Amino acid sequence: MGSLDANCIASPRGFSPLDIDDFRQQAHQTVEFICEYYKGIESHPVVPQVEPGYLRRLLPETPSAQPMPFAKVLSEVQATVLPGMTHWTNPNFFAYFPATLSSAALCGDLLASALNPVAFNWLSSPAVTELESLTLDWLAQLIRLPKGFLFSAGGGGVLQATTSEAVLCTLVAARKMVLERAGHDGADKLVVYASDQTHSTFAKACKIAGIAPANIRIIPTAREDLFSLRPDSLRAAMEADAAAGLLPAYVCATVGTTSSTAVDPVAQLAEVAGRFGAWVHVDAAYAGSACVCPEFRHHLDGPHKWLLTGLDCCCLWVRDRARLTTSLSTDPEYLKNRATESGLVVDYKDWQIGTGRRFRALKLFMVMRCYGTANLQSHIRSDVRMARGFEEMVAADTRFEVVVPRRFALVCFRMRPRRAGADGEAEADAANRRLLEEVNNSGGIYATHTVIGGIYVIRFAVGTTLTEERHVKAAWELFRAKADAAWEAAQ
Amino acid sequence: MGSLDANCIASPRGFSPLDIDDFRQQAHQTVEFICEYYKGIESHPVVPQVEPGYLRRLLPETPSAQPMPFAKVLSEVQATVLPGMTHWTNPNFFAYFPATLSSAALCGDLLASALNPVAFNWLSSPAVTELESLTLDWLAQLIRLPKGFLFSAGGGGVLQATTSEAVLCTLVAARKMVLERAGHDGADKLVVYASDQTHSTFAKACKIAGIAPANIRIIPTAREDLFSLRPDSLRAAMEADAAAGLLPAYVCATVGTTSSTAVDPVAQLAEVAGRFGAWVHVDAAYAGSACVCPEFRHHLDGPHKWLLTGLDCCCLWVRDRARLTTSLSTDPEYLKNRATESGLVVDYKDWQIGTGRRFRALKLFMVMRCYGTANLQSHIRSDVRMARGFEEMVAADTRFEVVVPRRFALVCFRMRPRRAGADGEAEADAANRRLLEEVNNSGGIYATHTVIGGIYVIRFAVGTTLTEERHVKAAWELFRAKADAAWEAAQ
Ligand SMILES: Cc1ncc(COP(=O)(O)O)c(C=O)c1O
Ligand SMILES: Cc1ncc(COP(=O)(O)O)c(C=O)c1O
Repeated sequence: MGSLDANCIASPRGFSPLDIDDFRQQAHQTVEFICEYYKGIESHPVVPQVEPGYLRRLLPETPSAQPMPFAKVLSEVQATVLPGMTHWTNPNFFAYFPATLSSAALCGDLLASALNPVAFNWLSSPAVTELESLTLDWLAQLIRLPKGFLFSAGGGGVLQATTSEAVLCTLVAARKMVLERAGHDGADKLVVYASDQTHSTFAKACKIAGIAPANIRIIPTAREDLFSLRPDSLRAAMEADAAAGLLPAYVCATVGTTSSTAVDPVAQLAEVAGRFGAWVHVDAAYAGSACVCPEFRHHLDGPHKWLLTGLDCCCLWVRDRARLTTSLSTDPEYLKNRATESGLVVDYKDWQIGTGRRFRALKLFMVMRCYGTANLQSHIRSDVRMARGFEEMVAADTRFEVVVPRRFALVCFRMRPRRAGADGEAEADAANRRLLEEVNNSGGIYATHTVIGGIYVIRFAVGTTLTEERHVKAAWELFRAKADAAWEAAQ
Repeated sequence: MGSLDANCIASPRGFSPLDIDDFRQQAHQTVEFICEYYKGIESHPVVPQVEPGYLRRLLPETPSAQPMPFAKVLSEVQATVLPGMTHWTNPNFFAYFPATLSSAALCGDLLASALNPVAFNWLSSPAVTELESLTLDWLAQLIRLPKGFLFSAGGGGVLQATTSEAVLCTLVAARKMVLERAGHDGADKLVVYASDQTHSTFAKACKIAGIAPANIRIIPTAREDLFSLRPDSLRAAMEADAAAGLLPAYVCATVGTTSSTAVDPVAQLAEVAGRFGAWVHVDAAYAGSACVCPEFRHHLDGPHKWLLTGLDCCCLWVRDRARLTTSLSTDPEYLKNRATESGLVVDYKDWQIGTGRRFRALKLFMVMRCYGTANLQSHIRSDVRMARGFEEMVAADTRFEVVVPRRFALVCFRMRPRRAGADGEAEADAANRRLLEEVNNSGGIYATHTVIGGIYVIRFAVGTTLTEERHVKAAWELFRAKADAAWEAAQ
């Protein structure tokens, strides 16, 4: 033991991992490292050219006892980690949905990490809770949620790490709500609904919550409805279940589906669900952010990926917060306190799966404060404008087609089939798959695919924070240039 | 729309929230802000003197359209957020379990935020996945987990945001494992087990997973066993359930309980559980970190709060990773890719609740690399030494007693009853409650309480990163100085 202690960094106070001077120096070094990284961001291939297991060949198999100088660790990160990154901040990244970011969010997040409050309840850090409640009220106003979702009206918002957790928490609350009405032994009678375009996280949340597969209704959508969930399909499914003695409990509607940004008609679906007393959750993980602009607002009658806050900042609002908290609350002796007993405070541990939680509100606050809502709107509009430009270029090339009309900043397109019928479709699928591979293998850009209505489609999602019009134009040139050869090669 | 756009920050490129020069300047400003904060940390009361709703009186009710200069936002945070913080980094914070932190973790986390990879599967950022697998293998070796928990042996580790999620994921995996063996309609026959000292997160995870309250066995512990779960109690409960046709499925053992750092005898409990084919999960949220020191290793035959990484870095290892992934996997078209199909890669979305995930491994990597395991060991030992010092001071004052022997860096103590019997106990409870209130109200330190074995106990948890011996000594002086008056006032 003594001999191990002798390995410590020499310091009058022994090992002091939060020494202010060390931190200052290391943090400034890290900031410069990041600036260099952003400066050279376009020189990295968007998707790395590494094989599974590459990192184990570069780093030791066992942890080392000795400390390593900070600068050397940064160099090691540069040499081993960066070459294996898919660069989500590269302006040529058009895959999935982009993860947006900003200086204000980075600084807010750093500050939150430095404060490091565990903030499970109000008392354990009042400012964390109060800032979260307030910023979510701000955002609710900005996206014009009905007043019932504000704290003053008995609703309220919470920041979750992921959309998946938000779905799971509301599903659990819905189960409690319906079972209280129906009597507690009805758990195996609960039925949940979503469209076939709903993110896979819905099915996962159902699995985690223990909803039997037989009680999960995945309702088909069609191309002629632009892949949105029809209220009459929902009604038919709910009526059949109710007639069979089952309990319709939960509908997961989506505003901006992952495949094609389809928009489910939330108001009409809510009207149907309301007749059966079911909970309606709206997954707007991507498109919710667009609702900061009035012109996109009509899509939403709940944002996380597109508001510049970086990862793990998923906003969830509920109309009746007591429904959520009664289904998730715990009250162990070691957390009992007067503030909680007073009933005057929000204890966010009862709004989420975990106990502890990061101070996520700080970055959202700093984004809203530093930029103002006008800039957030112009940011969304700028992405949409670039996507519209891309859509127009696709439409102008007769070899290509836009498969579903663009609504936000995702363009779903493909090379057209060259003959009608199933064989033509199969050829087109193969050719588009090949085209996407060739474009991605070029290293210059990264886009991904989906299959909707049986059609293989290329998804081109505009919106990393650094993307400019020139990147979008160059990406289109790449698709154009590779189109014919990809078609030939695939046949 | 045009008029709103006119509100943008003037810039040749329009609104550019990730402009490198802006970021450099703002990030350096934030670092200096943090250094000032740490410098003055002891001047803040540990627990803020604010009333519920204080923040709404300081900030506007609606978001503003206009941007605010960065420096002004930082001043606003200083003036409105800091006064409402419970300062978890204050060296006089002895409440709950401390959230430890380090310069390496802060820098690693900043870098992770700047890279902002969504990293749900290998392809979406290979380095994120591989660094996580590797660092968890490192840590598994350091705490000497059995080899079966390493990736090379079919096990593996994952970083989760909270312990609660880790419990929930393993519970879901256990359910699937047992139901596959027993036939799928046995869901309502599954029984889960834990002691009455288990963190409330266990009960919450059961609720979320849909385990019926009637199937949750909370087994009592006793002071004479130091509040650890007895293997014979577990066996009796499992035998009774099995005899009744139920299916023992999951045991949540704890190494280092929240109330008093009790240690359940993991090997013996696992032996009992094994006979019934039940899954054993070990919650070592706090004490797992201590196992980086060989002398604490015997407590564990399975870290998050004590390894300097800051919040949201909970390590979970499993012996058979397929059990976890088959119960949590999803395979939507838009995430299909060759790397996944090859079977050669880890897709961490199938190890957790969410889809997206932060690059948490980077801060753990930087902590392990920058400090080396020798320093991590000396960090743990230093906290334990300070707690031992506190324990000795308590034991030397005849008015006080240590209620359960200290094992790690938490001391559970109280003023002794002044007479035997229930009345004496009730007086002591009231007096200790009063003492804790007075000490906390002084603003100088913050400690919390629990009730174990019916006794009101003050928990004194040593270990914020900045805590030194002098803080511990001063805290003890405060308890001593207030003891007699608190006793009088409470009677
Ligand atoms: C033993 C134990 N388990 C679980 C938890 C809850 O952890 P989390 O906040 O990560 O969910 C705690 C928190 O203090 C704990 O001490
Ligand atoms: C509509 C939608 N819902 C849910 C998710 C999953 O989000 P998370 O990673 O936050 O769980 C996504 C991810 O792209 C999404 O597009």
